[in-house]
Amino acid sequence: MASGKFITIEGPDGSGKSTQARLLAEYLGKRNRSIVLTREPGGTFLAEKIRGILLDPDTGGMAPEAEVLLYAAARAQHVAEIIRPALAAGKWVISDRFVDSSIAYQGYGRGLDPAMIWEVNRLATGGLVPDLTVVLDIDAEEGLSRITRQRETTGGRAVFDRMEQEETDFHRRVREGYLDLAKQFPHRVKVVSALGQPDAISRQVSGLVEQLHHQKV
Amino acid sequence: MASGKFITIEGPDGSGKSTQARLLAEYLGKRNRSIVLTREPGGTFLAEKIRGILLDPDTGGMAPEAEVLLYAAARAQHVAEIIRPALAAGKWVISDRFVDSSIAYQGYGRGLDPAMIWEVNRLATGGLVPDLTVVLDIDAEEGLSRITRQRETTGGRAVFDRMEQEETDFHRRVREGYLDLAKQFPHRVKVVSALGQPDAISRQVSGLVEQLHHQKV
Repeated sequence: MASGKFITIEGPDGSGKSTQARLLAEYLGKRNRSIVLTREPGGTFLAEKIRGILLDPDTGGMAPEAEVLLYAAARAQHVAEIIRPALAAGKWVISDRFVDSSIAYQGYGRGLDPAMIWEVNRLATGGLVPDLTVVLDIDAEEGLSRITRQRETTGGRAVFDRMEQEETDFHRRVREGYLDLAKQFPHRVKVVSALGQPDAISRQVSGLVEQLHHQKV
Repeated sequence: MASGKFITIEGPDGSGKSTQARLLAEYLGKRNRSIVLTREPGGTFLAEKIRGILLDPDTGGMAPEAEVLLYAAARAQHVAEIIRPALAAGKWVISDRFVDSSIAYQGYGRGLDPAMIWEVNRLATGGLVPDLTVVLDIDAEEGLSRITRQRETTGGRAVFDRMEQEETDFHRRVREGYLDLAKQFPHRVKVVSALGQPDAISRQVSGLVEQLHHQKV
């Protein structure tokens, strides 16, 4: 049995992560690979409860340290309950967000020490690192205006979650964080422009995944 | 203005922490000290939401790492929103549980590496350490049977929360954890037997607090 791979899709809000994660799952599914498509924060009963707290605009003021630790708690459950068992069973796991989100949002966005965030996440993940991370790159204004347009199309007035409600400068720092991560970990983290048609972007993403497939494991 | 002190009350379930915390607050209140009486997990709106997840028996299986991180998240908010502002205003803060609970329960009880738990809690607390920690010592069976009796007295059948539902061996390890903490930090952590009348125990606790008061700050 071929061993599974762990692929994470990252990027600022509005970069189309969920769409690309789904298209990648379809692509790999057609090639007879067994897929687990999941997302953070969430993916388990406990983590979805935590997601509710994290994204609810009514939660209000949250210490940045509390935010990092809540995301890490949801991740610990996600890794233990979903990701590790799936990889152990030879499946391919595609996760919409993972540790890099904490570095980009709480490190670059909120200004917490990235070294401390890595350390906390080492406990959460037991040292699990994705085989490939695709960062969908988009500038902050364009990402936020996409979210507005999508929500208005689907349900009237756009409602933003607690993270999306942050000022544009916050989202600019998040984007910079992702681009820095790609520089720090060039073998693992690949940047793909989020501008253009979803199918065209998906072909770039699946191309990166195919390269991964041809690497020696 | 005299500076505030940070006192934590610790011990296994059923050791009478809440009662002793309340009696200490009354004692200090009568001596015209400004008091904040609080508890963990909880003490803030966010942390009480997290408390709900942690103690709900329906939450079910939780990775030990997720548990540590959830307690730490609640603590981070508690420190930022309640404890630090109160100490800065010269108040005395009495907390029913703090970091030592994570070492005793998730370290000794669940078998996670205490060094990792200290590290995660360093992020949560920003390095804040209690001036005095009183451990109310009781053996596991006696503690659990006290809880059963109390709940039956107040509301019929005893219902145990998710932590209390753990097996007796878990609670034995928690007690050992507390006694080890007292050996590791003899100046900060003092052990008081939880057997006997609440008023008599309270006199011992307030005696320890008075000694603290006469120390140079």
